[in-house]
Amino acid sequence: MHFASDNSGPANPAILAAIATANAGYAMGYGADEEMVKVTARIREIFEAPEAAVYLVATGTAANVLALSTLVQPWQTLFCTGPAHINMDECNAPEFYAGGAKLTLVTGADKMTPADLRTAIEGEENRGVHGPQRGPVSITQVTEFGTVYSLDELGALCDVSKSYGLPVHLDGARFTNAMVSLGCTPAEMTWKAGIDAVSFGGTKNGCFGVEAVILFDPAKAQEFEYRRKRGAHLFSKHRYLSAQMLAYLTDDLWLKNARTANAKALRLAEGLRSAGAKFSHTPQANMIFAALPRATHQKLFNAGAVYHLWDGGLEGADEEEVTARFVCDWSIGEDQIDKFLELL
Amino acid sequence: MHFASDNSGPANPAILAAIATANAGYAMGYGADEEMVKVTARIREIFEAPEAAVYLVATGTAANVLALSTLVQPWQTLFCTGPAHINMDECNAPEFYAGGAKLTLVTGADKMTPADLRTAIEGEENRGVHGPQRGPVSITQVTEFGTVYSLDELGALCDVSKSYGLPVHLDGARFTNAMVSLGCTPAEMTWKAGIDAVSFGGTKNGCFGVEAVILFDPAKAQEFEYRRKRGAHLFSKHRYLSAQMLAYLTDDLWLKNARTANAKALRLAEGLRSAGAKFSHTPQANMIFAALPRATHQKLFNAGAVYHLWDGGLEGADEEEVTARFVCDWSIGEDQIDKFLELL
Amino acid sequence: MHFASDNSGPANPAILAAIATANAGYAMGYGADEEMVKVTARIREIFEAPEAAVYLVATGTAANVLALSTLVQPWQTLFCTGPAHINMDECNAPEFYAGGAKLTLVTGADKMTPADLRTAIEGEENRGVHGPQRGPVSITQVTEFGTVYSLDELGALCDVSKSYGLPVHLDGARFTNAMVSLGCTPAEMTWKAGIDAVSFGGTKNGCFGVEAVILFDPAKAQEFEYRRKRGAHLFSKHRYLSAQMLAYLTDDLWLKNARTANAKALRLAEGLRSAGAKFSHTPQANMIFAALPRATHQKLFNAGAVYHLWDGGLEGADEEEVTARFVCDWSIGEDQIDKFLELL
Amino acid sequence: MHFASDNSGPANPAILAAIATANAGYAMGYGADEEMVKVTARIREIFEAPEAAVYLVATGTAANVLALSTLVQPWQTLFCTGPAHINMDECNAPEFYAGGAKLTLVTGADKMTPADLRTAIEGEENRGVHGPQRGPVSITQVTEFGTVYSLDELGALCDVSKSYGLPVHLDGARFTNAMVSLGCTPAEMTWKAGIDAVSFGGTKNGCFGVEAVILFDPAKAQEFEYRRKRGAHLFSKHRYLSAQMLAYLTDDLWLKNARTANAKALRLAEGLRSAGAKFSHTPQANMIFAALPRATHQKLFNAGAVYHLWDGGLEGADEEEVTARFVCDWSIGEDQIDKFLELL
Repeated sequence: MHFASDNSGPANPAILAAIATANAGYAMGYGADEEMVKVTARIREIFEAPEAAVYLVATGTAANVLALSTLVQPWQTLFCTGPAHINMDECNAPEFYAGGAKLTLVTGADKMTPADLRTAIEGEENRGVHGPQRGPVSITQVTEFGTVYSLDELGALCDVSKSYGLPVHLDGARFTNAMVSLGCTPAEMTWKAGIDAVSFGGTKNGCFGVEAVILFDPAKAQEFEYRRKRGAHLFSKHRYLSAQMLAYLTDDLWLKNARTANAKALRLAEGLRSAGAKFSHTPQANMIFAALPRATHQKLFNAGAVYHLWDGGLEGADEEEVTARFVCDWSIGEDQIDKFLELL
Repeated sequence: MHFASDNSGPANPAILAAIATANAGYAMGYGADEEMVKVTARIREIFEAPEAAVYLVATGTAANVLALSTLVQPWQTLFCTGPAHINMDECNAPEFYAGGAKLTLVTGADKMTPADLRTAIEGEENRGVHGPQRGPVSITQVTEFGTVYSLDELGALCDVSKSYGLPVHLDGARFTNAMVSLGCTPAEMTWKAGIDAVSFGGTKNGCFGVEAVILFDPAKAQEFEYRRKRGAHLFSKHRYLSAQMLAYLTDDLWLKNARTANAKALRLAEGLRSAGAKFSHTPQANMIFAALPRATHQKLFNAGAVYHLWDGGLEGADEEEVTARFVCDWSIGEDQIDKFLELL
Repeated sequence: MHFASDNSGPANPAILAAIATANAGYAMGYGADEEMVKVTARIREIFEAPEAAVYLVATGTAANVLALSTLVQPWQTLFCTGPAHINMDECNAPEFYAGGAKLTLVTGADKMTPADLRTAIEGEENRGVHGPQRGPVSITQVTEFGTVYSLDELGALCDVSKSYGLPVHLDGARFTNAMVSLGCTPAEMTWKAGIDAVSFGGTKNGCFGVEAVILFDPAKAQEFEYRRKRGAHLFSKHRYLSAQMLAYLTDDLWLKNARTANAKALRLAEGLRSAGAKFSHTPQANMIFAALPRATHQKLFNAGAVYHLWDGGLEGADEEEVTARFVCDWSIGEDQIDKFLELL
Repeated sequence: MHFASDNSGPANPAILAAIATANAGYAMGYGADEEMVKVTARIREIFEAPEAAVYLVATGTAANVLALSTLVQPWQTLFCTGPAHINMDECNAPEFYAGGAKLTLVTGADKMTPADLRTAIEGEENRGVHGPQRGPVSITQVTEFGTVYSLDELGALCDVSKSYGLPVHLDGARFTNAMVSLGCTPAEMTWKAGIDAVSFGGTKNGCFGVEAVILFDPAKAQEFEYRRKRGAHLFSKHRYLSAQMLAYLTDDLWLKNARTANAKALRLAEGLRSAGAKFSHTPQANMIFAALPRATHQKLFNAGAVYHLWDGGLEGADEEEVTARFVCDWSIGEDQIDKFLELL
């Protein structure tokens, strides 16, 4: 009954097998391995983007901050939501990599609306060199509260951004969970909507640790390579990153893992709803925020369930409801969900 | 009828005279001039802070960012208001000097309350190494909307900060305007309230361009000196900064200038009030925010008045009211105010 | 006949097996996995340093720059050799992570001597706040030219550093190769000699990609954790780093791999010497720099040998000698060396 | 007998008078003052560069680092000499402003030769993303040892730089001293030779504190403005910088001051030579490095002469010779030189 995070389960056996296969003979280091050629070709294929520049790194934060730092200048401000990972959970890595650029919080809510975004962009104006200058917009998909922007929503946000000449980045740590939730193609969820750069996550969807950065306009590709090396994120034994990503994109593993994770989360959500849990955000992918009475949490924890509480946790009066986050990855067993729902 | 800013009028003749006097013979450079010894002694005297470290720079932004960068670590976040100069008007200089530290906006309002501050500090918790760590608090006095924190308000904000172990910086670009408004001593408005470091402005109050940074705890004094030099803010012909500050603090020039500026602004405010202007913030120092009908602004501009409009300026329907900012410095003539009020 | 680098061969099967074993069930992320507890204990044990702070990252550059950035201030200069990896091969990552600190090149030679170091440190003096301030010393062991500092040499360099109050970092990308070459203990090659922080390499000695940073004084441990996260080097699925390092330090794998690599390199060196190759530096570990006639290189390349040339490579007159770098890792087959020496 | 530095004498009365004149009425802040329009026009005129972007700051270090930061990327290295001010005397400000770029020291000598420069540039090659990338070249004119590059020398250095596509910066803290020494025009010493950006000093040649940055290609002008503000170097009461620079460039004040300073220094050099002093560098402008016996220095100091010693100063055996630096500014009296030479 482990629902703590999609980074706490094991990697898919196919990923392990790919590493084992890659672990033979000699390979050029630093991204010059033959597998990387295949990775690039495969990502260009699935994204229908034959010119895209493609790079691999090992952490989602690295993907985000390296991608963003190629889009922003140090005297600009990045537009994102308050709960965005780049604002809340990267210990100022975006500011560090961007040379001290600022983050402007478009909204404190889960999703930004086009109106929010326009207001925020308009707010950073009229001050000449005094204020920070307007910089890129970063959208998180799946959001930090487990919801998914529709293609229309994404397109509308990109339209606002483009009307100010601002590039758009997609933090896709859970890219595939969102994509299968929407039932769209990678291209539709990215460049066709107006996205310029993507952090395409693998780690949370069954890999050991690999994320791709995709720049649809390759003009900044060389700069990205310098930034990756200077950030200490260029792997010497790069083939093990390539092997993960290649296996991930082979035989629909990425899609299957995401579908599995989403389906299990939705089943869990159904059960929680039946048990009277209240949802602050409608679950659309593999992450659920649901409020239950404190006593219920206590019971579940006592029975061995693992997940995170918000709002101060278990302390306080029993009758109060406390929001919990439940995350399903590809590996969680149906029996575990059965057991959990039974306990409920 | 020039009310655009307290940085657009001339310097006080006494400041010019001091520079002329200083401009004789030889002086050691880089802060080793004899006048600087007197400046330090004088500031320690008026602040009743015999151990304080005192440094001079030429711009208010330099004072702010150098002071703050000695108080903050790059992985921390600084607490300030949305309208704060360090957030709105320094083109990311604080983030640059602080190595990519973040700014957390405690409130979008003019002043932060202790409750706001506590909420903001509490909001940056519980995420271990993931979130930015809590850093210093920066308070602006006079605020960007021309109001003044009372000593009780300052003390309460410092108490909240101290309860979390966070140091407090005072952006005193208009320090003396606030002080004479409150009728308190420099010590009462700073270290006695709990302030650790001050940007003590001279430029807006009759100098050419000089600001002191005062660190009540001299432990970071050496670090400050490296940071000032590395920021390219150490003057070789430093005596001209010293001479300004010394003249500013001689014969009560700083107090007289501030009292004059405040008095003129309050007279202007009276006149505006009589003319039906609406105040978004009660004027307490030398800066007024007042709304007048667009047609009135047009008439005033046509007659030669100079000041800034907020809210999109003159475009739009005549009947609408538009907020204007009026700033008085020490030099504005009573006749100019007469003329302006007459026009009104 | 692959002698290009010790990052181009496969990982040891024991490392792969450890990852496979670790890939079961759930584990806390971000370094809170149970294996990491064992890694810390094991490293403290082999280094006889019960208080040491131990952290894992995936690249050698990350280990170096994170370790160094905890030792240096942005207004200081780091002392290292010209050929040092941190100077030549990290694309300014040290300067980036250290907030713009400088590198002072103690010598252009392979090794710095105590006299070189003293002269360099003395050279950064007497300029007050104007010059960069003296910062840490970084020593590379095995050096970039395949030689090894003796314990006496290390101790003498540390003595010079300590006489100026400067901390010392050891870039141990090939730590174990040096250690088995010297026949000493980890403690003797580090803190007993006066080293404060170590980049302890695993990647080049049979792992996929893992390096430990060891801080003998844990005072900066918390700061290191913030820096690692802010650098985007904290792995969510950290257990796969832990598993590698734990397997590496189990059953003497680290020692066996290093001994094997060194022995093969020395055998290769013997053969090269017999064939008339000239050595710019005496091989002491697993890396050889030897000059051969251009025609010989051409013949070897034609036969399938893989290694890097220095000095402009194959272009030019045949009779000239060109220096080549040959690196052996644990995996290179004796048959490959046989074949290569036969060709020679 | 004050020969310590050209930043220790008084400003020229014309500069003070200009500030007094400027100190009347109201002026727009932040560089929008009317005098700045004249400054730009005047500098474009004397440099025969009608498109040049022109900006003012208050310190030479600010001019250097802001100019350089628009020419360099953080992953590049800047080429300069070891004694260059940007390397020795700016406390890592260049690295700070350039986001952690490196400085490659072309030579430890006073001047770089084209061959030195070519070798240094060639040395930063062949390592792909691993090494720092080649960045701009910075030349100091007058050099730090008081010599002057001929126009041919400057042209040859620029030719080498351009053959690699690298921009060239001129640190002209003593620009006019060099120019009058060469008897050339500003254009000849800059863009006609191949220089792209200039730090054009006023402070050391009779101003209070003002330096112009001139970018012959205005493509980076907007970026420069953001960088200046973000560096906290944009003056609110900018008119006092403009007034200084305008007076400096009026009635040949800049030329007269430099000619006076150079002439006095050459007269001093003659006297020193007659007295047996040995010159490490042939004096060509207003700065002299001459060795005298320790006892002679002692005698001169006792008589009230003020200047800096190199090589450890006065300690040691009397018979040894110690190098001293003597700098003349515009203000030093002939009587002071008489007195000094008499003492000698």
